[in-house]
Amino acid sequence: MRAVMTRRGTLSVEEVPQPVPGPGEVLVRTLACGICGSDLHAFQHADRMRETYQRTGTPLTMDLDQGVVFGHEFSAEVVEYGPGTEKTLAEGTQVCAMPIAFGSHGPETVGYSNRYPGGYGQYMVIQKDLMLPIPNGLPAELAALTEPMAVGAHAVARAELTKDHVSLIIGCGPVGLAVLLSLKAQGFGPVIAADFSAGRRAMAEHLGADSVIDPARVSPFSKWAEFGIPMTAGEKLTALLTGETPRPAAIFECVGVPGVIQQILEGAPLDARVIVAGVCMETDHFEPLFAITKEVDLRFVLGYSAEEFAGSLHGIAEGLINAGPMVTGMVGLQGVASAFDALARPDEHIKILIDPSQR
Amino acid sequence: MRAVMTRRGTLSVEEVPQPVPGPGEVLVRTLACGICGSDLHAFQHADRMRETYQRTGTPLTMDLDQGVVFGHEFSAEVVEYGPGTEKTLAEGTQVCAMPIAFGSHGPETVGYSNRYPGGYGQYMVIQKDLMLPIPNGLPAELAALTEPMAVGAHAVARAELTKDHVSLIIGCGPVGLAVLLSLKAQGFGPVIAADFSAGRRAMAEHLGADSVIDPARVSPFSKWAEFGIPMTAGEKLTALLTGETPRPAAIFECVGVPGVIQQILEGAPLDARVIVAGVCMETDHFEPLFAITKEVDLRFVLGYSAEEFAGSLHGIAEGLINAGPMVTGMVGLQGVASAFDALARPDEHIKILIDPSQR
Repeated sequence: MRAVMTRRGTLSVEEVPQPVPGPGEVLVRTLACGICGSDLHAFQHADRMRETYQRTGTPLTMDLDQGVVFGHEFSAEVVEYGPGTEKTLAEGTQVCAMPIAFGSHGPETVGYSNRYPGGYGQYMVIQKDLMLPIPNGLPAELAALTEPMAVGAHAVARAELTKDHVSLIIGCGPVGLAVLLSLKAQGFGPVIAADFSAGRRAMAEHLGADSVIDPARVSPFSKWAEFGIPMTAGEKLTALLTGETPRPAAIFECVGVPGVIQQILEGAPLDARVIVAGVCMETDHFEPLFAITKEVDLRFVLGYSAEEFAGSLHGIAEGLINAGPMVTGMVGLQGVASAFDALARPDEHIKILIDPSQR
Repeated sequence: MRAVMTRRGTLSVEEVPQPVPGPGEVLVRTLACGICGSDLHAFQHADRMRETYQRTGTPLTMDLDQGVVFGHEFSAEVVEYGPGTEKTLAEGTQVCAMPIAFGSHGPETVGYSNRYPGGYGQYMVIQKDLMLPIPNGLPAELAALTEPMAVGAHAVARAELTKDHVSLIIGCGPVGLAVLLSLKAQGFGPVIAADFSAGRRAMAEHLGADSVIDPARVSPFSKWAEFGIPMTAGEKLTALLTGETPRPAAIFECVGVPGVIQQILEGAPLDARVIVAGVCMETDHFEPLFAITKEVDLRFVLGYSAEEFAGSLHGIAEGLINAGPMVTGMVGLQGVASAFDALARPDEHIKILIDPSQR
């Protein structure tokens, strides 16, 4: 099959062996696959990423010297079942699946594994038990957004919001926008969204943000008083003594570079819940006293549950999650390298999908 | 009245003006007052502490150049009500109170204020509405432990534990032991307690820790497997697939020096809830990826609610919170300076109380 092979510092379209499904596995033909920010990171910082993950006790199994086919945000079509595997869905059925494989080497991520090529190739092997049929009529391109939308849904679930919460999203890349869409789909609001990129702010507004902020001009943390959120114990006490119920705040960190958490701690109001969805791979610094005096919660998130994944697919299919506008580009396999370049410039694109049937 | 005056770098017993209660306030005679770790910190690092608090938006109002009477962990006896103040409790009634004053300068902490001297002096002015009568028969020395016990109760409340949680306490000073006593009083367990000091480990064991660890010999994070707590996503998946319900873990950080949070993130199991009760006043560093891959919650805590304060007083009075053994010393006013020295050596004392009626 044809696939984009990622090796140390190079992306090239190659003819590679088609993967073979084992028991419990299914060969599928990729219909669409998103390029994830983590793919860009893995391409540029593979060694450090691997070394850091190794130290956390959750090793990445991929070896870029051998070459890896990226792609964990995909939709696909059933081709063939592995030996002894119950044929639960007919050939040709369009499916999504969590990108996890349970092979003989233990759990691995499809698209970050040398054994399980991802959606940057024409064919993949996925787990039969994880396949979800794409509801009738949902285009495969939209179904490929299920995975990033599940990331947003999981971050929102970890926030355990009430209808009183005011949410602030720091960073309107695909993760921040997925959080925004999940908040809106569940009726949470108001939502303030901050990004240095005008294009991303416009997208956030288009997708339902109640207020957008350019941090180059205005502090993202300048709106608390407007929403009746106390910054200090004195303000909170005053509110309580006058019979007001102060509103709680949730801040979604969707950037993932050192220094952002400290900025958030400095700007957070009292009792803020901070959901850290940005993946910072470097050592970061912070001043605990800011978190202590405000009794901040820092809730770190990764991935999603099977329920959140299924909920995202159905949310997109039913029109509750308006993810479509996030797709700003579509490329064939030959276009992936330049798509990686384009995605490094934040004002140009949000999400680029790959159609591996196209050269 | 006689009081221990704290000035920049000096502690001295002096004759100072007796405070005068205003409307809504009550003059009380101090019966017992604990020396808190924060007092030691404020004595040694007053300027940095003040500067850091200032930046967090919760300024300390005290000025050490003017002299401050410390002491916010006290029991006392009603002497006289301020003008126009309803006499809710008879003269001579023994009371505890949250150390907060609502004077004309806004909320202040009794014992960290130039206007409201604390329990290191013979008399204090406290708020009538915050006074709680000490239940009959509870010695004033034990009632003075209400405040530090409320700190422990609040940390445990913020952890939102279930009966399945396994708790690990890092640091068995007064805060760590208060957490331990609160966990035990509420029936949470097992509780693992770690401290470099043999004396503090012995105290933790005496107060009900199910397991104590000397971090110089064994990692405090080496016990997870024993309690069926998964460290990695692979272990969790394996547990779930074999029908086991993995137990959740809570880690109480009760040290408050840079580096401990990173150590905890490295040693924490999957989905750990970390309650940061230690007050680190310096810049700290950490690697977010450890928190991300384990989906850790870092919940920072400070103080307690009025309910937690009252609950601690009654918990001590009813024998549910066995705080008495924590008192390892009792001094008069002249003994405070050497008590500060002794408390700097962790193996010698846990909690020293001051009896201001004694010279």
